[in-house]
Amino acid sequence: MIGRTFLGGKNVRFLHTADWHIGKKLHGYDLLNDQKESINQIIEIAEKEKVEAIVIAGDLYDRAVPAVEAVELLNQKLIEINLEKKFPLLAISGNHDSASRLATGQPWYRLKNFQLHTKMTQAFEPIEFVDTQFFLLPYFEPMDASFYFQEEIRTIQQAFEKVIPEIKKQFDPHKKHVLVTHFFITGSLRTESETTIEVGGLNGLSKELFKDFDYTALGHLHSKNAIRNGKIRYSGSPLKFSLSETNDEKGVFIVDTLTETVDFHPLKPIRDVKVLQASFQELLTPNYYQKLDRTCFWQFELKDRAIIPNMMNQLRSLYPFVLGVQRINGRNESVKLQELQKRSGKPEEMLTSFFEDITGDSLTKSQLKWLQEGIQAANDQEVRD
Amino acid sequence: MIGRTFLGGKNVRFLHTADWHIGKKLHGYDLLNDQKESINQIIEIAEKEKVEAIVIAGDLYDRAVPAVEAVELLNQKLIEINLEKKFPLLAISGNHDSASRLATGQPWYRLKNFQLHTKMTQAFEPIEFVDTQFFLLPYFEPMDASFYFQEEIRTIQQAFEKVIPEIKKQFDPHKKHVLVTHFFITGSLRTESETTIEVGGLNGLSKELFKDFDYTALGHLHSKNAIRNGKIRYSGSPLKFSLSETNDEKGVFIVDTLTETVDFHPLKPIRDVKVLQASFQELLTPNYYQKLDRTCFWQFELKDRAIIPNMMNQLRSLYPFVLGVQRINGRNESVKLQELQKRSGKPEEMLTSFFEDITGDSLTKSQLKWLQEGIQAANDQEVRD
Repeated sequence: MIGRTFLGGKNVRFLHTADWHIGKKLHGYDLLNDQKESINQIIEIAEKEKVEAIVIAGDLYDRAVPAVEAVELLNQKLIEINLEKKFPLLAISGNHDSASRLATGQPWYRLKNFQLHTKMTQAFEPIEFVDTQFFLLPYFEPMDASFYFQEEIRTIQQAFEKVIPEIKKQFDPHKKHVLVTHFFITGSLRTESETTIEVGGLNGLSKELFKDFDYTALGHLHSKNAIRNGKIRYSGSPLKFSLSETNDEKGVFIVDTLTETVDFHPLKPIRDVKVLQASFQELLTPNYYQKLDRTCFWQFELKDRAIIPNMMNQLRSLYPFVLGVQRINGRNESVKLQELQKRSGKPEEMLTSFFEDITGDSLTKSQLKWLQEGIQAANDQEVRD
Repeated sequence: MIGRTFLGGKNVRFLHTADWHIGKKLHGYDLLNDQKESINQIIEIAEKEKVEAIVIAGDLYDRAVPAVEAVELLNQKLIEINLEKKFPLLAISGNHDSASRLATGQPWYRLKNFQLHTKMTQAFEPIEFVDTQFFLLPYFEPMDASFYFQEEIRTIQQAFEKVIPEIKKQFDPHKKHVLVTHFFITGSLRTESETTIEVGGLNGLSKELFKDFDYTALGHLHSKNAIRNGKIRYSGSPLKFSLSETNDEKGVFIVDTLTETVDFHPLKPIRDVKVLQASFQELLTPNYYQKLDRTCFWQFELKDRAIIPNMMNQLRSLYPFVLGVQRINGRNESVKLQELQKRSGKPEEMLTSFFEDITGDSLTKSQLKWLQEGIQAANDQEVRD
């Protein structure tokens, strides 16, 4: 197998990315365009850094059955990377992918050095690449290992204790060894956008398992800082997928097997995810908001305690991608119903404001309709009584 | 583009099939194994007949989002046909396929002479094959043509009146011209297993449109006899998908562009679909049923008029894949409720028999539970009254 360009005699430079989650939404907002841009930037980095392969460590899609638009975007970008730009691609399926669905086309991809592994056993056939053996071990369940090794295996740690020696049987001592896989390493830091269910294949793995690899390119956790270890790394996702990632820097790693260096290259999102502490009045003041990038995904930590009528709609007219509002000083809970009624007049307006204040969101059309019907029914009742 | 084997200097022999509908069920029965076997037989015919290409004229899958098992079967068989047996494959998407989902892997397939067209415009790039130009025109909607030709196109006939001249611009006068497409030709005979909705792309097309092609390989209608024309043919589906197809012979066509012959090659199903006229007593008599292939999908035309308790369960114990029962002489409707009660005793048994007799099917567990609750409620009511 021959890389795209050679920088010297005996090294492989590759790009490590993971967790693209194509088709994922953020608080209901479609991310397809953001995801397209992040892949474009990954391609630019790969070209600029003259890498010889791109590694994608699982979760290419966000769901087993992705939307047609997600399928189209991933197809288009894989064609661009592998067939047009001619980068060899080394990829695995993650826990969010349907291994069988993702496997479509796999034996044809191989003809152009696009290696896509979706079965545990495929990790036992190393991909040889200049001075390096790549072992592509997709996400799998303990049961898959039980079936293959013909013995009872209950945890993913037990499975890895069988799988890793099996991989090591294939080690060529004259080459470097890179493992690409998609699991949770015990002690790693989670974000809020990952699957938190710890069943089957997603129990923790001990770091010790990976000590004989020159590099372990991981997917699954969304922060590049999930684990602090030069040789075992999560690349993290290319985009922020939750509020817990606002301070996380997103990007890819460039790994060089000769110099044994791992360099981080950041990605610049179209719409960043940001948290801001402010008063409602500040957020509505031109002098204040003109200094902000209002096209970010904003989460506001509101200092105000007062009830603010029509709050979310007011905010959305200025900040089109507002994620939500949190009241950091609590709310004025002591206002009596009569006072509210005095203040805003109609029960409908009052209840709408109350809903917005409590939930940080505005009523949907259906909810508004139910509310109006409820008020009408209450009025009818009063009349009859 | 080079075929698998050459039988002479200047001809192409190809196999024409269509409407595999992988993942389809027949009256609730899973057909995956039957579909696998039919594809195996298609491969055997292709090998024996030394064809240089296999044409699949649409509806590879039964649904836009097929089950994982269907995806696995189709992937496996396409690998076998194209990569292992090395047959060039010329395929299009049909109205049952999701064009975008099916397109996954398409540019890599092309490297091994597996041409899979999913967009109308791909028909304007002929696939050159020895002495023949193949035009692969997948199922599309009038709107797609509107968009491409930048004018209002409301029917598929209008679309074809623009598309066919566009295809003919690509005609090499020294070659033969084969069109592969997936539509309803006006005047063709339907079966009950086809989509009957005549909207968008499924309005009828005039035969005249195809007069300049040496052969038009069609998909969509499930009978090879849907249209009687030497040069324009539906291959039909490889399996019977409805009772209206019991007398239909299923198979594939072998087309030779030099001799200009079209030969039919039948496929033998694992489980045929058959209709039988008999009395209930005959169906239960060993001397009678031992002469039948009881593993067929049987539809029974019952001569009996009497109510038969537990009919479907009795039949299923002998005929595991019974599709249904029709009473050709009607039923005894004049039996009074009191007489029925005398005959069978409990209301539950009586109602169960009645349901089976009317519907030709047995009660599900839930239905039985509802029935028992209903009877209980009626009894309670009587006691209270």
